[in-house]
This record gives sequence, C-alpha cells and structure tokens, in this order.
Amino acid sequence: MPVGDTTFPPMHPVRGFRLGTASAGIKTPGRKDLVVMAFDEGATVAACFTRNAFCAAPVQLAKAHLASARPRFLVTNTGNANAGTGQAGLDNALSVCRRLAELGQCRPEEVLPYSTGVIGEPLPVDRILDALPAALNACREDGWAEAAQGILTTDTRPKGATVQVTLAGKIVNISGIAKGAGMIKPDMATMLAYVATDAGIDGTQLQQMLQLAVERSFNRITVDSDTSTNDALTLVATGHSGVVIDDETRPYFQAALDSLCIELAQGVIRDAEGATKFVTVQVGGGSDAAECLRVAYTVAESPLVKTALYAADPNWGRILAAIGRAGIADLDVNDVRVRLGDVLIAERGGRAASYTEEAGQGVMDREEILIDIDLGRGDASETVWTSDFSHEYVTINAEYRT
Amino acid sequence: MPVGDTTFPPMHPVRGFRLGTASAGIKTPGRKDLVVMAFDEGATVAACFTRNAFCAAPVQLAKAHLASARPRFLVTNTGNANAGTGQAGLDNALSVCRRLAELGQCRPEEVLPYSTGVIGEPLPVDRILDALPAALNACREDGWAEAAQGILTTDTRPKGATVQVTLAGKIVNISGIAKGAGMIKPDMATMLAYVATDAGIDGTQLQQMLQLAVERSFNRITVDSDTSTNDALTLVATGHSGVVIDDETRPYFQAALDSLCIELAQGVIRDAEGATKFVTVQVGGGSDAAECLRVAYTVAESPLVKTALYAADPNWGRILAAIGRAGIADLDVNDVRVRLGDVLIAERGGRAASYTEEAGQGVMDREEILIDIDLGRGDASETVWTSDFSHEYVTINAEYRT
Repeated sequence: MPVGDTTFPPMHPVRGFRLGTASAGIKTPGRKDLVVMAFDEGATVAACFTRNAFCAAPVQLAKAHLASARPRFLVTNTGNANAGTGQAGLDNALSVCRRLAELGQCRPEEVLPYSTGVIGEPLPVDRILDALPAALNACREDGWAEAAQGILTTDTRPKGATVQVTLAGKIVNISGIAKGAGMIKPDMATMLAYVATDAGIDGTQLQQMLQLAVERSFNRITVDSDTSTNDALTLVATGHSGVVIDDETRPYFQAALDSLCIELAQGVIRDAEGATKFVTVQVGGGSDAAECLRVAYTVAESPLVKTALYAADPNWGRILAAIGRAGIADLDVNDVRVRLGDVLIAERGGRAASYTEEAGQGVMDREEILIDIDLGRGDASETVWTSDFSHEYVTINAEYRT
Repeated sequence: MPVGDTTFPPMHPVRGFRLGTASAGIKTPGRKDLVVMAFDEGATVAACFTRNAFCAAPVQLAKAHLASARPRFLVTNTGNANAGTGQAGLDNALSVCRRLAELGQCRPEEVLPYSTGVIGEPLPVDRILDALPAALNACREDGWAEAAQGILTTDTRPKGATVQVTLAGKIVNISGIAKGAGMIKPDMATMLAYVATDAGIDGTQLQQMLQLAVERSFNRITVDSDTSTNDALTLVATGHSGVVIDDETRPYFQAALDSLCIELAQGVIRDAEGATKFVTVQVGGGSDAAECLRVAYTVAESPLVKTALYAADPNWGRILAAIGRAGIADLDVNDVRVRLGDVLIAERGGRAASYTEEAGQGVMDREEILIDIDLGRGDASETVWTSDFSHEYVTINAEYRT
C-alpha cells in the first residue's frame, strides 16, 4: 500500500547504458529476478556501499573490483542477499562475475555484483549462471522499467526517477531506479539503487558528486533503523551526450542529481513495508546539524510515534517524549516548538494554547505528514523522511521467510 | 499475554511502610487509580528519575522536594502522566502534594508526586484531591498487592518482588512493586517502581546502593527504545527492623536489593506490551562494557530481530545485520560467534557448519530465548533483557488513546 503517486515514470534512456532482465527462479519460479546492466568502455563509475560490518559477499567483491578496474557490467539478483555466507558466498559472487565476463568478453574485475533478499542462505549460483546469457541478450537502452521490477523484494511497486537538464546547449539525461522497503536506514546508500547519465564526468568528480547527493537523499531516510548488509548505490556516466561536466556546469548537474536521488529515496519510503503514511521530520533551530539529525532520527524511529502515525492519532506527547530522550545536552524544553503540518501543537513545555484536537486530527488524517520541530537554540536544520509502523509491517517481517 | 510465571507473590510487609489505594476515576470510572504510600519520620529515601528532557511535572516537583526535605508520603496516580503540561501541570502536581500534606499533617515538600498514563492531557486534579482521604485512610502495611494493581496502565498484571535477608542476626525485609509495559527504555529507572525496606540506611549510602542496583536491573531493559517522561524508582528505608546497614552487612544488602530490582525489571519485560517472548541478549568478548551494551541494545531494539522473534523464526541473518550496524570500530566479523540458547548458529562471517534449521527452530519455539553473542576481542560482557514485537504491540499503541 504505497503512499502517494504510484505510477512508474516514462524513463529517458541514457545513451550507452543498457539493461536486461531475465528469470533465474532464485526464490520464486518464473519471477524475473536477474538484471544485467551493460555500458561501453570509457564510462566512469562511482558507488557508495553499506557500512554494516557484516556486509554481504557481493558488496565486498564489488568494492574490490571497483578499486582495481573500470567496470563494464553490473549484475543483480533478488531473492537472496548472499550475506552472512562466509567464503562460499565470496566464491559464488566471483563465479557470477567470471561467467558474465566470459559472455561479455571482459575481465571478471570489470563486473560488479549485487544481491538482495534473505540473509544467510546459500546463493543458488547455478540458476544464476544458467540465466546470465538471457539477461545479457535482453540488454537494451529502454530496459529501465523491467529492470526496476527485476530488483524488487518486498517492495509493492517499481521505483524510478528521470530528469533532463540542458547543459552547454545539449540535453543531458539522468535516470535511476531503486528498491528497498524494509531493513532501511542507509548508511551510505539505500538497499540497491542504480543511476546512469550520459554526461561525461571524471571518475573522482563523479564519486564526490555522488557522495554529496547521497548525503542529501538516501542518508536521510529510515524505515526501521536497520541498516542493511547489502546497501549499494551505483552511478554510471557514459559520456554519450557529448557534454563533459566542468566547473561551470557542475552545480547544475549536482542539483539535478540531488533531486533525482531525493525522489528515489522518498520513493523507497513511500513504498516502505506496511507504510500508510509518508512522514517528513524537519528539525530547525539547532546548534548544529548533528543534533538536528539526532532529534529527527529519534522521532522518526520511535515505535510509539510510528504507531500513533499509523493510527492517525495526534498523540503529540510521544513526539515530545522522543525529542526529550534524544540526548541533546542542556535542551531547554521551554524553547521547543512542535508543529504538525502548519498546526502549532506544543510550546513552553506543553500544549499550545491555540491547539485543538480537531486541528491536530485534520493533519494526522492526511497521507503525507510534516512533523516540524524548532529547537529554538541555533540556526542549523535537517530533514529526515520516514514511514509509519503498521500491523502490515509486523506481518511482512514475521512471515518473510515462510 | 505475559511471558512466564504470572503469579503475584505473597509480599513480606515492611514495618513502618504503609500503602493505600482508592478510586479517583481519572481515566476509567471505578478503577483503583490512586495510591498513597506513607512512612514514619526518620525513614531515609533515595530515588532515580528519568533523564528525558521533557520530564513530567511530578518528576520535576519530586526532584525539588527530595532536595529540600525528607519525604513522608508518596502519591501516585495512573491514567494521566501530567507530562507536556507546562506550568499548569506543575501547579496541579503541587495541589496534590498540598492536599495530602494537610491530611497527613506534614509540609508539602514532604510529599513526592508520581503520575503515569497518557502524555499531554491536563491532569483532572479535582478528582484526585477528592479521592486522597480515602487512599490515605486505606494505608496499611499489607497494602502491597492493591497498590501494585493501582499503579498499572497497559500492564496485564501487577508486578512485585519480595525478599528476606538475615543481617546481624535479624530479619530484614525488602519488598517492591513496578509498573510499565510500553515506552520502556529506562535511563535511570523504569516507568514507576517503589521499593521499601525496614533496614536502617543513611541517606547518602541508600542513594549509592540504589544507583548500583538500577544500573544492573532497570537500566538493562528495553521494550521499544522509548525512554519515558515519567520514569521514577523510589526506595524507602524505614529502619524498623533494628538493623543498621554498615560496612559488613552492606554487600549482603546490596546483593539482595540487586536481585529484587532485577526481578522487578524482568517482570516489566515479561509483561511488555504485546510480548510473547522474554529475550536475554548477552554480549561477551567485548573490548569494554560500552561496546557490549551498544551491540546488545542494537540487537534488542531492532524491529526486524523483534518481529522474527515474534514469528519464532530463527532468522539469524537479522541478528548478524544488527551486530554489523552497531558501529563497533574495527569489528572483525570472522571472530564473532552467535548462539541461540546453546545452539551455535554463526561463526567466521556465516552460518556455522554444525547448524541445522531444526536446532534453531527448537530454541525459537521457546517462550524464553537467549541470544548469546561473543565478539571475540576482549573480556567485557553485558546483558540486556527485551521482548518481541507483535501485532498486539501495534494494536495497543495505535489504540492507546481511544
């Protein structure tokens, strides 16, 4: 039950970037669960990976390959995370890279592997090897929609974003897809996201720009505070537009990349496991960004705030309680103001005189809710996006392996 | 649906400490929701309160009163937390103290107020003032069971613990009650707990001993990571046993107090909102206690681990993922071993060779589950107790104000 517009957008193809999807039958027979992305020699690639210490085998291998070669292929399977699988998991991920390298006539280091799904089960590698030729043969520049479908797990809908920007008189395309609905508190990137552009960008600059964009998008969302073992966001720049990003065009490209990443990250929250609300937690008036984020995450991850949001109950006392336990030194509660949407609910340590339950209820009944907190002690501000906590979330995660 | 033995124990009375319960009709007409505890002049009192910055009016007032006088009465209402209520909340809490002081012939500063229930609603103070005489008149030394019932909110059963210890040839009694089922991650104490002893203990020592006991009990439990605005644990020593605690008897008294506090704290978890499991998360082999606690709380508070516990699903990959995201510097996942009960499930970054799904399932099917994590890098260890995350938790907290 995703929140908001659920249409998958018509995607601008990115010249030089092809996507192919096939069925390997990893978890569900017949399901399209294998995606290959191919791009021409000369493309630059940037990536951010999870900082979970138990990072999955494909994450370990992708990092090593990225450090030693310039990628030509990305290969993703859903239905199995290949995480918590020890040496056998690394061997399996490497087999997948080797086979695709043979088929695609490159070196195994030029392939980056990705997996998502259940943790701790052996990867059914033979099924993937068998399906690789079909995925590779299916690669085409308008393969975005099928690929967006092919990487999903508990998601209810594919998530994509696409933007065109005119730079130096030419059109540059940026398109991206993401998956992820639970185990979401990215700590460098979300579960899996792939963005491609036909701009030409030097590899070092590309990595810097990606990190900036991630910090403003995927690193500002949380469903359940559980950082995944498999988070990876990859950005490929093919250069086929003929535009090379320079100092003049860089801010424009960065802005376009930021807004695309924010749209994808918000898309993950709109489709969060069991979500019935899309919630923006905005914290202003802080001494620094760190304390704003601390308050925002404490509110956004509070099970009691999230169940109240699910119930559309303006139980603002739980918001105050979450702010109060965020561990902000010397917080003067008399300076804190809390708004639900544009309704002032709390100030001077208690309920605002102007507040009525009806006004609060009016905001809570909406599908999209803003919790606006002013700490009243500085100029810093931060924003985090989250979902509510529903019966459906418990059902999905209690029955995930059955 | 509490986990384990649900019998309220026969409580040893504490000479000089009397408890009286009455009905003020604060939230539910006819419910016994007001408790007065009275003790003789000369008793010493220690207390620990929440460190939530939005601490409730009664917490603010109790702290101020405790700093300026020696208490004679404790007064507790359920059904309303008197938190997030600003100046009016403080005025209301003071009115309750004043009225009880008149009735009990002492000064208002000698009364400590406590409230629990919904946050942010005005306290219906007149109903409390009207019921105070009845509660005071009901005070008697065997009033423990009724008082334990009178302080409950979403709890399904009263929680008490009682112990006798022979010191210097005489019997010393320690008895205590606690409430709390949600918004539980005490950060000095639990929601509300009251412990009394007829030992004689100097006030400074009493406070030190209470803090030690709290650190080993109430500060090691979490239901939902939400530290309450109203946490308070109060310990009264009447001295009526004739035993004065000295250097020789102190370790014995401390041990008895610790075990009583642990029993009460575990009782809170056994009766946690929606709980179907009682879970012990034990982390050993850490470099220091802080990192053991960090791992233990990350696992104990992970919504994904808690929903797997609810489903009795040995989805140990979620435990590894939680350990991996706990932010422990330089954690070598190859050194980490995880056991479910006595079943080794993971080592060397993956599933243990000896592990079988049947063995894991056998442990998960139990009502009481041990998650035993060895970080393999030092000698420190810590233990935290928690509950699972069920549909019932969502229902209770979505419908709390309706």
